[in-house]
Amino acid sequence: MTGQRAGKHVETENESAPARNIVLKLEYCGRDFQGWQIQAGGRTVQGVIKENLEKVIRHEVNLIGAGRTDSGVHALAQYANFRTSNPVAIGQIKHKLNQLLPDDIVIMDCWEATPQFDARRSAVERQYAYLICERPSAIKRHLTWVLGRKLDRGMLDQMAAVVMRGRNFRNFCKSKSLKENSDCRVMSASWRRRNGLLRFEITADRFLHNMVRLLVGTMVSVLDGAITMRQFEKAVLAEINEKAKYIAPACGLYLAAVKYERGIR
Amino acid sequence: MTGQRAGKHVETENESAPARNIVLKLEYCGRDFQGWQIQAGGRTVQGVIKENLEKVIRHEVNLIGAGRTDSGVHALAQYANFRTSNPVAIGQIKHKLNQLLPDDIVIMDCWEATPQFDARRSAVERQYAYLICERPSAIKRHLTWVLGRKLDRGMLDQMAAVVMRGRNFRNFCKSKSLKENSDCRVMSASWRRRNGLLRFEITADRFLHNMVRLLVGTMVSVLDGAITMRQFEKAVLAEINEKAKYIAPACGLYLAAVKYERGIR
Repeated sequence: MTGQRAGKHVETENESAPARNIVLKLEYCGRDFQGWQIQAGGRTVQGVIKENLEKVIRHEVNLIGAGRTDSGVHALAQYANFRTSNPVAIGQIKHKLNQLLPDDIVIMDCWEATPQFDARRSAVERQYAYLICERPSAIKRHLTWVLGRKLDRGMLDQMAAVVMRGRNFRNFCKSKSLKENSDCRVMSASWRRRNGLLRFEITADRFLHNMVRLLVGTMVSVLDGAITMRQFEKAVLAEINEKAKYIAPACGLYLAAVKYERGIR
Repeated sequence: MTGQRAGKHVETENESAPARNIVLKLEYCGRDFQGWQIQAGGRTVQGVIKENLEKVIRHEVNLIGAGRTDSGVHALAQYANFRTSNPVAIGQIKHKLNQLLPDDIVIMDCWEATPQFDARRSAVERQYAYLICERPSAIKRHLTWVLGRKLDRGMLDQMAAVVMRGRNFRNFCKSKSLKENSDCRVMSASWRRRNGLLRFEITADRFLHNMVRLLVGTMVSVLDGAITMRQFEKAVLAEINEKAKYIAPACGLYLAAVKYERGIR
């Protein structure tokens, strides 16, 4: 009797044990979200996906995202994984979830990963893009920073090269704790004009809180003469301790890509 | 005394006589507007501009637009003119108006035209663009028709060529009156892929109500097999009397350009 009970108990555990590790690739418009991460009272991307995903797979879900985008920040390629024992077909998860989700989140792709895969910990590189509209615009206002004036491309390129040389970005981080590890390995940082917009692209192993928006805001403040190129350089190379004061608006920022250890699948 | 009074009266008339004819070039995002034209109870582009313009030039304004965009339709280049006797500098009108206007309308340019210029009557060509997003997208949802599937470019090109041969577009018009003049001189109509979007561009001397959206909706319905290419051709060439049934959503449509008799200035 005891053995049978124990056996049954183990069986139940096996049934409820999450055997599948499922990855979602998603795009979202950050405008009406208070960022990725679930928080009390706010509409968040993680919260909205979790709520609808639980309707599809019929049990509680722990949804892990590759990066925590802030309030108003968009994602062209955010990744998230969750574990489930529900045998529902992978195509059905994508289809049903897209039917349930509001139109500011779209599941672009969905597949099964190895048991070890973790959308956050397995990520080795993240890429952000920041879009600036140099002409006045009513149409681009929620998807770019509408600056409405032409920026000096030569100086921007110079500053991107400085960013590439940065190692410790403590001056470009919202957090006030100086104990926090502020090291970031920047793989690339560059400006280009594309589709009539000015686009800053930066790839690194990790990003600090508000780092890209503070970098872009400070670069624009150099162009405006609010601080000098040399001050910018000192701040990026952590030769001084002075928190950046200029932050670019969230609506211009996009989580653009995430690179994983063994490729994305 | 009478003479003096009469003189004074005439002088006042001269002062209030609209001596200047001022043109605005504007961009707007149609999402939160019930179209261009003022109507009771609705937020309209014409209404919002008129209200703010009257604060700047301090008298009532008759604002004439080049074309009446519908609810939800955007404009990359809408033109409007109004008459005023206020000597306020042209740069001040643009500057003050942009300060007052909500961020979904931007005055791109502002200048003085000849007394005869009329934004609507002097227009000789109008160009509309229609944007389709072929992949699922959360970001483009208010600025394109997110179809989420690849369209057959060869068939679209064929249909654009048919549209070029059209003369009477009575089948692609919301109005039910058959008496109305439905002749349009189409100067160009073409599809292209640009910036990852499929873009239909059409230029004509005039457009009927909902004409572009009905044309695009019907072209997509041909691709979907809902009607045949031959039926589309018959409808465009007005060989039959059958109102188009498929209308593309307003959010993909843009008033893209207006051409004037003697150039724009």
